[in-house]
Amino acid sequence: MSKGVISKDEDYSQWFNGLVVKADLAEHSAVKGCMVIKPYGYSIWEKMQAALDQMFKDTGHSNAYFPLFIPKSFFSKEASHVDGFAKECAVVTHYRLKNDGNGNIIVDEDAKLEEELIVRPTSETIIWNTYRGWIQSYRDLPLLINQWANVVRWEMRTRLFLRTTEFLWQEGHTAHATAEEAIAETEQMLNVYADFAENWLALPVVKGRKTANERFAGALDTYCIEALMQDGKALQAGTSHFLGQNFAKAFDVKFANKEGKLDYVWATSWGVSTRLMGALVMAHSDDAGLVLPPKLAPTQVVIVPIFRSEEELAQISEFVATLTKELKAKNIRVKYDNRDTQRPGFKFAEYELKGIPLRVAIGGRDLANGTVELARRDTKTKETVQQAGLAEMIDGLLVEIQANIYQKALNFRTENTREANTYDEFKKMLDETPGFISAHWDGTPETEERIKQETKATIRCIPLDNKLEDGTCILSGKPSTQRVLFARAY
Amino acid sequence: MSKGVISKDEDYSQWFNGLVVKADLAEHSAVKGCMVIKPYGYSIWEKMQAALDQMFKDTGHSNAYFPLFIPKSFFSKEASHVDGFAKECAVVTHYRLKNDGNGNIIVDEDAKLEEELIVRPTSETIIWNTYRGWIQSYRDLPLLINQWANVVRWEMRTRLFLRTTEFLWQEGHTAHATAEEAIAETEQMLNVYADFAENWLALPVVKGRKTANERFAGALDTYCIEALMQDGKALQAGTSHFLGQNFAKAFDVKFANKEGKLDYVWATSWGVSTRLMGALVMAHSDDAGLVLPPKLAPTQVVIVPIFRSEEELAQISEFVATLTKELKAKNIRVKYDNRDTQRPGFKFAEYELKGIPLRVAIGGRDLANGTVELARRDTKTKETVQQAGLAEMIDGLLVEIQANIYQKALNFRTENTREANTYDEFKKMLDETPGFISAHWDGTPETEERIKQETKATIRCIPLDNKLEDGTCILSGKPSTQRVLFARAY
Repeated sequence: MSKGVISKDEDYSQWFNGLVVKADLAEHSAVKGCMVIKPYGYSIWEKMQAALDQMFKDTGHSNAYFPLFIPKSFFSKEASHVDGFAKECAVVTHYRLKNDGNGNIIVDEDAKLEEELIVRPTSETIIWNTYRGWIQSYRDLPLLINQWANVVRWEMRTRLFLRTTEFLWQEGHTAHATAEEAIAETEQMLNVYADFAENWLALPVVKGRKTANERFAGALDTYCIEALMQDGKALQAGTSHFLGQNFAKAFDVKFANKEGKLDYVWATSWGVSTRLMGALVMAHSDDAGLVLPPKLAPTQVVIVPIFRSEEELAQISEFVATLTKELKAKNIRVKYDNRDTQRPGFKFAEYELKGIPLRVAIGGRDLANGTVELARRDTKTKETVQQAGLAEMIDGLLVEIQANIYQKALNFRTENTREANTYDEFKKMLDETPGFISAHWDGTPETEERIKQETKATIRCIPLDNKLEDGTCILSGKPSTQRVLFARAY
Repeated sequence: MSKGVISKDEDYSQWFNGLVVKADLAEHSAVKGCMVIKPYGYSIWEKMQAALDQMFKDTGHSNAYFPLFIPKSFFSKEASHVDGFAKECAVVTHYRLKNDGNGNIIVDEDAKLEEELIVRPTSETIIWNTYRGWIQSYRDLPLLINQWANVVRWEMRTRLFLRTTEFLWQEGHTAHATAEEAIAETEQMLNVYADFAENWLALPVVKGRKTANERFAGALDTYCIEALMQDGKALQAGTSHFLGQNFAKAFDVKFANKEGKLDYVWATSWGVSTRLMGALVMAHSDDAGLVLPPKLAPTQVVIVPIFRSEEELAQISEFVATLTKELKAKNIRVKYDNRDTQRPGFKFAEYELKGIPLRVAIGGRDLANGTVELARRDTKTKETVQQAGLAEMIDGLLVEIQANIYQKALNFRTENTREANTYDEFKKMLDETPGFISAHWDGTPETEERIKQETKATIRCIPLDNKLEDGTCILSGKPSTQRVLFARAY
């Protein structure tokens, strides 16, 4: 294993943690549960942000920024919301430190806040309190706003990217005149997320609805995209909530319709987070390191010279200068690593670890033959190709690699999505062939909860494209009209 | 005054607050001292971010992300740093809320943190604690990192954008092998800020150094850019700090140099914030609203049709479709406002308020004559021009407007920078002709402090391009070798 990365078949969890650190994506910080996103990891996150942000703007949304702090009383205004978040809140109680006279810095008890402030775990409450001032009439609707922000949910057991006390995300918060429009927005944003997951992350996702148990605290309906990781566990990659009039009622946000009649506003919220970084790593990487889809790779092509003399390096560099120019003209992100302090083998391992989609190696013999060696990260194949037409070939290969990474993940998911018709079969699959399990469920929270307690599997979603099909619940044997998707999940 | 904006000559402070709110830039939130940045304001901030971010990357920096929370003990490790920030900290003491049994949500005293966490007011401490793990040898240097983040400094008296408890900013934190390299970085980033201020914000700035009194808590030297607002008060628009080895020593960050000898690392930090939004408004706007430099204007050109019939509107729209296409091909941000619910006069006032640099109005007579009416926001001049060649003309005008807004601000600053040679003259200028005052100072903190106490004027900076000149201190009469720049400031 290069650089001490553990094999994923040996210990998937340790493999993931090790890879995230070794590939310079992120690391644990000195603050419990909080991570540091390192420059390489952040540069991938920036590409995700840019793509998503453009998709949000293309669908009519604007960005804005709301306060980090939420007064405790706001939290209590929507009953199920406070139940959902109160147990994991960072609470600010004071606004000053002081010297205790013995050289120690202590909290100044004279600077106690009258009302505690909660560090936002999500912003529905502060935003809907603000919307009250922004919405008077149907002319102010729809209000389509997104925020890029950090949020805090106190976590006892954390994992880099997947579950951290602080994480980065975007949260969309929209307001509409009718339930229909709000539902259409909820569905539109789910589709945006699915589009992003499939076309950028190269991650096939199942679009579906959460059961009542798994809904967002305060939502009438939660839509989600669910992806399958290489260990057969599911990962929720994004959610889009239809909030009904719950927050409008809690914060008294009414609008006058065209007839002048007052009604409460209809709401949605939707978000994805740095968790997607975890999904990216878990879905595609291997024991040699990351496998990045070209669209998100900070460097798409790395060129490594193999030389025995300064003169040979100079000749290679001349060729590379032309190639680099051609690649950049095609908006391809290319890096030339001509360091003479590291051997080619070291560089090859490093770029495999970092997941660079394509590697071009060129040595003296290549110069003589008019060739280069091209190595693909996704298939780990190498071939010697002509220098003529290389830029066009690379351009095409990057598209092919993006498609191949997606197809590989899709094949994996197809192979690991199974139907279970009895509870025994279901439990056996969970242990022996983990993946998505499509099974009949009687629709009750009690059955769902018992399955969760007994097997640690949860209902990931009720797929949107579900066929109706008569059957019997795997646990209760009661009648059911459709299968739902179960899995153990992150 | 349109839409209730108060005249800036009448009450500059109220004019500013009113304009920020009326122009939809920002508003106060329900959380004391924290603002909501509204979509229009945020879209300008995004343009600032994009331009700065590119400049940082062009000078070799990468973005990363460090935790929001800082353990209290980290804070105390650099003595002057804690003195500078302890008085204005938001302190997290608990991590859970609970129901008190009577339906009230209260802080759960069982969830008290062993060590309090500070919401970052700036990130030197958490970052240098992290750098200890990232830097071993000279090969790891320089480390050139920037972070876009929110920070919190508890403020008792807040003003939108200029002084808020939470604000958005970027903070660069770099590590170097030598003092010389760190100083060069400090100066480079000051120049980047000055470049951005002048070429994007259209804001002339004085580059200088702060006196010891005004230095960043923990810095050996603080460089700054200082701008003059239309009321003659100065505004610090960005700072770049040479931190010496203070933070490396506090967090034990050493590197092995080429000879294998261990030494502490040299540091810089530098930042600009949403305060620049305040500077933008204060520097250029007038009683009719914002005046945005074209480079930062979310919409650069607005087109308003003036029509008496649907048929006329259709004809105008046909022309506008072609014009819009031509403008977009030149990367000009254009909006066509064909709403029939508002009269042209209303639209004109709205776009003046929003500071759109150019307005194109076109009516039936224009169609017949092959003309349009062009109105500039900066000069408030209107002219009738030919439709032929309009896109090219607009392209040129946007460049001219950007330059003109800068020149106007530069002229204002030149007219309002004066030399004072006696304390009486100095005080008279402060009250009667506020602006920058260039005056001799004896170099002592005591004199600086007394002038501040007596006049509320502070030394904004010791300009970098200062000529040495013998003189006597305006307060103490002691000898001085150069003038420094005083002003009352935001």
